[in-house]
Amino acid sequence: MSAATPDLSALAEPRWNEVHNPTSPVIRFGENEPLRLECQQDLAPFAIAYQTYGELNADKSNAILVCHALTGDQHVASDHPITHKPGWWTSLVGPGKAVDTNRFFVICANILGGCMGSTGPASLNPKTGKPYGLDFPVITIGDMVEAQARLIDKLGIDQLFCVIGGSMGGMQVLEWAARYKERVFSAAPIAAAAWHSSQNIAFHEVGRQAVMADPNWAAGNYYAAGTTPKNGLAVARMAAHITYLSEEALHQKFGRNLQDRDTKTFSFNADFQVESYLRYQGSTFVDRFDANSYLYITRAMDYFDLREKHGQVLANAFRGTKTRFCVVSFTSDWLYPTRESRAIVQALNAVAANVSFVEIDSDKGHDAFLLEEPTFFKTIRGFLNAAATKRGLAPVPEGRS
Amino acid sequence: MSAATPDLSALAEPRWNEVHNPTSPVIRFGENEPLRLECQQDLAPFAIAYQTYGELNADKSNAILVCHALTGDQHVASDHPITHKPGWWTSLVGPGKAVDTNRFFVICANILGGCMGSTGPASLNPKTGKPYGLDFPVITIGDMVEAQARLIDKLGIDQLFCVIGGSMGGMQVLEWAARYKERVFSAAPIAAAAWHSSQNIAFHEVGRQAVMADPNWAAGNYYAAGTTPKNGLAVARMAAHITYLSEEALHQKFGRNLQDRDTKTFSFNADFQVESYLRYQGSTFVDRFDANSYLYITRAMDYFDLREKHGQVLANAFRGTKTRFCVVSFTSDWLYPTRESRAIVQALNAVAANVSFVEIDSDKGHDAFLLEEPTFFKTIRGFLNAAATKRGLAPVPEGRS
Repeated sequence: MSAATPDLSALAEPRWNEVHNPTSPVIRFGENEPLRLECQQDLAPFAIAYQTYGELNADKSNAILVCHALTGDQHVASDHPITHKPGWWTSLVGPGKAVDTNRFFVICANILGGCMGSTGPASLNPKTGKPYGLDFPVITIGDMVEAQARLIDKLGIDQLFCVIGGSMGGMQVLEWAARYKERVFSAAPIAAAAWHSSQNIAFHEVGRQAVMADPNWAAGNYYAAGTTPKNGLAVARMAAHITYLSEEALHQKFGRNLQDRDTKTFSFNADFQVESYLRYQGSTFVDRFDANSYLYITRAMDYFDLREKHGQVLANAFRGTKTRFCVVSFTSDWLYPTRESRAIVQALNAVAANVSFVEIDSDKGHDAFLLEEPTFFKTIRGFLNAAATKRGLAPVPEGRS
Repeated sequence: MSAATPDLSALAEPRWNEVHNPTSPVIRFGENEPLRLECQQDLAPFAIAYQTYGELNADKSNAILVCHALTGDQHVASDHPITHKPGWWTSLVGPGKAVDTNRFFVICANILGGCMGSTGPASLNPKTGKPYGLDFPVITIGDMVEAQARLIDKLGIDQLFCVIGGSMGGMQVLEWAARYKERVFSAAPIAAAAWHSSQNIAFHEVGRQAVMADPNWAAGNYYAAGTTPKNGLAVARMAAHITYLSEEALHQKFGRNLQDRDTKTFSFNADFQVESYLRYQGSTFVDRFDANSYLYITRAMDYFDLREKHGQVLANAFRGTKTRFCVVSFTSDWLYPTRESRAIVQALNAVAANVSFVEIDSDKGHDAFLLEEPTFFKTIRGFLNAAATKRGLAPVPEGRS
């Protein structure tokens, strides 16, 4: 860190190291390479931290960009540097997996606005030498995609074989397909939507208000105080977490089971397993995530509406596309229900795009895309195999399907 | 107030008057009339504040007990003393309405644990002369019903013509029908459930954690400090409010419409109407409701499981009942979905009870029971008319249906 860097010793937790000096590779864009944001501000300098898995082939035609969701990061298929848990999409991505890293070169960048090494509100503002806080500009899904495109440029890749992602990752996939038709050979938006619904905006607003209600948030300037709005962020995470599961999943997982006791305590203890589970989800989240990043990223999702720049007609966003699409939804996902995927498919059909649509039967809710769902894996594997054949990639090695 | 009453001048807001000296009638039970609670504590003294509408007939056979929901109160069909808005169920209850106060004597009591004059955590603890705070015992739906039964005793009514309520009010209706089979001629549990689901416990826990995360909550002792955990309670209310509406209702009401502006502000302002609406819901709620009451009442709902005292078989709760039931659900209610009403109906059918079940087609979500739903009104009117005939009440006056 430069001499201008303030004393961040109070923020010695591992996650602050990941903000400023991530353990993954980083590409830094200088003052002379500003990113023009949708809010019309220029962001410079900025950094994009990323991970790769597998090897880029000679003609650079086997690259798959994975786009991560709200609380995800670039550590798709390798251990997380803070939690030391396996990467968040090891179910799908890895050697021999549906997104086979023996065959494909997988790239994932921490999103702009994130807190795992890409520039975000916890990063140092070059004008002040202090973390941006709320001086960080409000960014959009489009801005995230532009930053990723810059990274892909630096990696010397003209066309991505596939862009894939779930939830907010799926929003980025759609934005990629709309902005860079020639650079996306195939695209898989999963459990996503082309615009954020009123109900989803509402849930996000609750989360933001929970963070902002925490006095430790300090109008976004908690970095200097060496504190974080842990309580507020934990509440936000708890509320959001409910929306990631289905009622059926909660019922099957917890029902009305009591936690480590035989009878109710007639108190406000976590008598029920579901309470204990949620509290745990909240408390562990705050150890790895920046509260301001949570505000900025939820805002970007709320702002997302792919119709807006296309005369309010979604189909116009995809007009002329040659990309092969695979749209996936899950039956019990009430955060991004199937009808929202269907709207994407209808728009693609309206412009005669090459699209397949699969609704996966699952009781796991929105989180299903992160979990063991064999039919989902099979769908993605089949889609990528067919696209690879079309793209002229080497066939799947003997003995693997 | 007695000489032992502490200085509450810091709490001069109208709602503190309603806690201690409600504008509605109150029946006070003395030290010699304790209420034995399910937690095995005795509560004494205690007060039950209530409202009545219409007139009790000579043989006291026309009394309808209305049970209110989580944030409701006894002011069913008359102006609220704090907000001065019309009572919360004026859509259904009043002269000539489905619950016709020209014909029936309608009683509604503020629930035990509430903050509108019935004893709750904001009431003065006779042992300390200060508000109970968390020294108030954790109460149950059964305890609420016991307190109501004491009130009904004092009013000299042996049998209620009907017990009716929606949401948590419906839970009380079920508890009444199970505990006091001879005292309930007819019962209408609306948009309710016989046990609180895992998902509903989860949402309540988020709300409680939001309140408790507010430093002004002060472990429940905020009364003395003259503060209230407004921010935390507002967040809790916002989260809960989303669950009261359907996604369709939010979409129709707000969609992605912007609030008082033409373009996004690229800020954390309430750009969207739905954000503005939720913030308003949160901020107005804290002016009329006690945060500790919110904790206690949500806890009571979470604890509710009518199967528990009946060998885990719901039907056993109703065995031998002669009560006439009308169970009502709404198609778009995802907080208490139709299948939970169906479980009640199945239990009633299993003991050959007299039950009719109506699922009302509505896009308004859980809140539908409070809103203009003509089919719902017609259902309740028809049910009460038939029950009144059976009970031998005077027929509906000429010209009214």
